[in-house]
Order: sequence, then C-alpha cells, then structure tokens
Amino acid sequence: MIHRGHLHTISKAKSLGDVLVVVVARDSTIRQRKKREPISDENQRVSLISSLRQVDAAILGVEGDIYDTLERVKPNVVALGYDQHHMESEIEREGRARGINLTVVRLDSPDPSVKTSVLLKDT
Amino acid sequence: MIHRGHLHTISKAKSLGDVLVVVVARDSTIRQRKKREPISDENQRVSLISSLRQVDAAILGVEGDIYDTLERVKPNVVALGYDQHHMESEIEREGRARGINLTVVRLDSPDPSVKTSVLLKDT
Repeated sequence: MIHRGHLHTISKAKSLGDVLVVVVARDSTIRQRKKREPISDENQRVSLISSLRQVDAAILGVEGDIYDTLERVKPNVVALGYDQHHMESEIEREGRARGINLTVVRLDSPDPSVKTSVLLKDT
Repeated sequence: MIHRGHLHTISKAKSLGDVLVVVVARDSTIRQRKKREPISDENQRVSLISSLRQVDAAILGVEGDIYDTLERVKPNVVALGYDQHHMESEIEREGRARGINLTVVRLDSPDPSVKTSVLLKDT
C-alpha cells in the first residue's frame, strides 16, 4: 500500500533529476528484511508505484546483486530511502568501477511514525 | 493508504470520461461509516489521491449533503464505488432536479478481498 511517507520520498527523489526510475524491492528481499509476507506481491507493487504521477518508470530490482540494477539504469543520482541499509560510499565506488559517474543522496524521513508497520498498528 | 483496489476503481472511473474528479470522504463520514479513526486525515487523503497520474483533481466532499458536491462539480458521469451506499436512481433524479444531466455508473470490485480492512487483517 502507498502512504504519505512513500510520497514524501518519491517527491524528494524526483526533485533531484529529470527522470525518476523507482526500483521496487523483490518479495524475497521483503521476506528477508521485514520477516513477514508482503501485503501486495512484487508485480502489484510495481503497478502501484507506476500509477504515481511523479514516477517515470518502476522496475523490479535484479535479484542478488544491487549493482546489476545500477548497470541497467545507469543513473546520475541514486536516492536512498532513510531506512535503506546500503552505504553511500560503497555505491559511489561500485558505480565508478562500472564507469557510471553517480552521486548518492540519502533522503530524510518526513516523520518516523509514517511507516506501514506503524500505520497498521495504529488501526 | 492507497492499494490496488483503489487503483482498479480509479482506472475504471477514468475510462468513463475525460476529466476525473475524485471526491474524497470527510473524516466525519469515515468515523460514522467505518466505526474507526481514519489512518490518514482528510487533507492527507486528498494529497495521496492527487498524486495518482489518472486523477485530474481530488476534492473533499461537502459535509452534509452530497448534492452540494454534485452542483459544484456538475459531472456528466457519476461513478460509484462497488461498496458505496448511494442509490443510482436517486442521484440521477436529484441531478436532473438541479439541471445536471448525468449518468450514474456502479463500478465493480476487482476482488472483494482487496479492501484496507482485509489487507490490514492479513498482516
């Protein structure tokens, strides 16, 4: 499901460039990271994200190595969500090693209480 | 929060005309109808709905009388969600009484299990 925290993140990311490609997490990643089943499956999440006006394309992440996705998209800017565990410096280094000159930006959170897990608990 | 059931409804509604105006329920209506607090408040819901590509405008319903909203928008088509309690014939009659020549369409549900209340229970 899409909530206002996602919209905040997407608006911030869109403001960093011209074309916004959103990489949607795989079901396998969600199971591993969140220790629960996804509410919607990965194809439904791509379709939800694609329905947002500010999103130019939504794609599923390549399973296994995040750098395969980087090579596929060749972005100028990588915007990480505030709660993503990836390291800014490592992504910049690995991008350069693949001939992609990119900047990594860490987005802030509008409000740490705006998370699906918290919103679900409140209802 | 926006889920795939909402997207289905919005796509169907959009296909019935050129400009899609979504009337977002008031907090007071949600409290009364669903017997719970809204997950996001009414202004946040307007902003969420406005972020969808297919939505041309999202407005809050006029409190009290749904026909005040009808007079404000003057639609050619009114698309009702599959679970809205309003009567098609009454809306057509009240529209005509106000000089608005409209057709009322009842949208179907993609899948009755795709409702926020059901999705929340599943997590």
